[in-house]
Amino acid sequence: MSAAIGTLVLLRHGESEWNAKNLFTGWVDVDLTAKGEDEARRGGELLKDAGLLPDVLHTSVLRRAIRTSILTLDVLDRLWIPVTRSWRLNERHYGALQGKNKKQTLEEFGEEQFMLWRRSYDTPPPPIDVDDEWSQFGDAQYTALPPEVRPRTECLKDVLVRALPYWYDSIVPDLQAGKTVLVAAHGNSLRAFVKHLDGISDEAIAGLNIPTGIPLRYDLDADLKPTNPGGTYLDPEAAKAAAAAVANQGR
Amino acid sequence: MSAAIGTLVLLRHGESEWNAKNLFTGWVDVDLTAKGEDEARRGGELLKDAGLLPDVLHTSVLRRAIRTSILTLDVLDRLWIPVTRSWRLNERHYGALQGKNKKQTLEEFGEEQFMLWRRSYDTPPPPIDVDDEWSQFGDAQYTALPPEVRPRTECLKDVLVRALPYWYDSIVPDLQAGKTVLVAAHGNSLRAFVKHLDGISDEAIAGLNIPTGIPLRYDLDADLKPTNPGGTYLDPEAAKAAAAAVANQGR
Repeated sequence: MSAAIGTLVLLRHGESEWNAKNLFTGWVDVDLTAKGEDEARRGGELLKDAGLLPDVLHTSVLRRAIRTSILTLDVLDRLWIPVTRSWRLNERHYGALQGKNKKQTLEEFGEEQFMLWRRSYDTPPPPIDVDDEWSQFGDAQYTALPPEVRPRTECLKDVLVRALPYWYDSIVPDLQAGKTVLVAAHGNSLRAFVKHLDGISDEAIAGLNIPTGIPLRYDLDADLKPTNPGGTYLDPEAAKAAAAAVANQGR
Repeated sequence: MSAAIGTLVLLRHGESEWNAKNLFTGWVDVDLTAKGEDEARRGGELLKDAGLLPDVLHTSVLRRAIRTSILTLDVLDRLWIPVTRSWRLNERHYGALQGKNKKQTLEEFGEEQFMLWRRSYDTPPPPIDVDDEWSQFGDAQYTALPPEVRPRTECLKDVLVRALPYWYDSIVPDLQAGKTVLVAAHGNSLRAFVKHLDGISDEAIAGLNIPTGIPLRYDLDADLKPTNPGGTYLDPEAAKAAAAAVANQGR
């Protein structure tokens, strides 16, 4: 095993307005709740207690991840670190489910179809109409993005395919430079990275949930393999309880 | 006159804790006051009313400028735009005056010396000791900066000399790409840019003050010369009143 060359910290945004309302969010650009803001600040306290000071930040272009990173870094007095943002770190585009209630969707389509859309690796929900009020096709973040790259729906595999180029081109160089890299993103873009890092199978990834606001640390060797497989949550007890709660959404 | 190619928006941070206390701040990394936060949000409202939507952001590495940019962009729903930060956009390093009261300094050293330090183009205050509690030599923002580049004091000319490389290398390419570029920075780094853009003489720049929180717009032609010399404040009346107040600091 080679020595660790860089430290990766994955951070899922705190509770958003639509997490709280139990709606499928995806690319809808909702804000954090007050609880989500507290989670983000607590993420900062956990990093401070662990002495983990990010040298550089990567975020999605969605406000819940950006604001989480701001609140977390403010606690660490590191608002000044370099930051890069990309749609490639966005949450999965939930297609026609965006804006729909999770419980109602479960009741309407049944447990099997619901879990297939939520957790199967390669079954995307039905695509959303470009003109649908929740398609987000008109959002200013994406005007430079040609329509053929703009998703109308995504499965986790699609997220992995669009997120990995950013991993290799933007995050890996920072890790190879020995930096502590904070990635503030979303349940599914982070699951894609964890699947890649830990070599989790297409089937097993269904059972993996990432809690909000609890930094997940990976120490990576020169081959970008974790020297701590599975990563290390900075608050393992809270992570366990929160992951169980995520798994029960829609119930 | 060539057509405008890019739009530059200069924004001085809102009132800081040490503006309010009438202390020389420089590189001391103080936060905004509640009034300063309001000014930053008002800057966002002024940009919104003018339909001026920044495509890209440049800030210093000081929290009062960074937080101003966050509050301003939040109003515009543009937290997601790309951002680059640099110590080259920092406030002037005020040397041994950092941490000192402006009124006391005026009384101690007299009007002439005080105004020379505050407003002359090429007379820096005495250098600060590296070990002085207000030197900021230990700040995490600057660990990658070799000691010989780290200022111990600066006059406006020094600020211009260290800020212009950033102007040419980082801001100009964005303007040449036709972008609307927001620069969130400080009284003296912005005065340096205004001096450069408007070709203000070393003597005349002494009389130019930039108010906090009021966006100053420049439309630039292909030679990076303003098609609106002097720029256009988005709230000219407020800018006039505020600039007069800045000029009277220390009285």
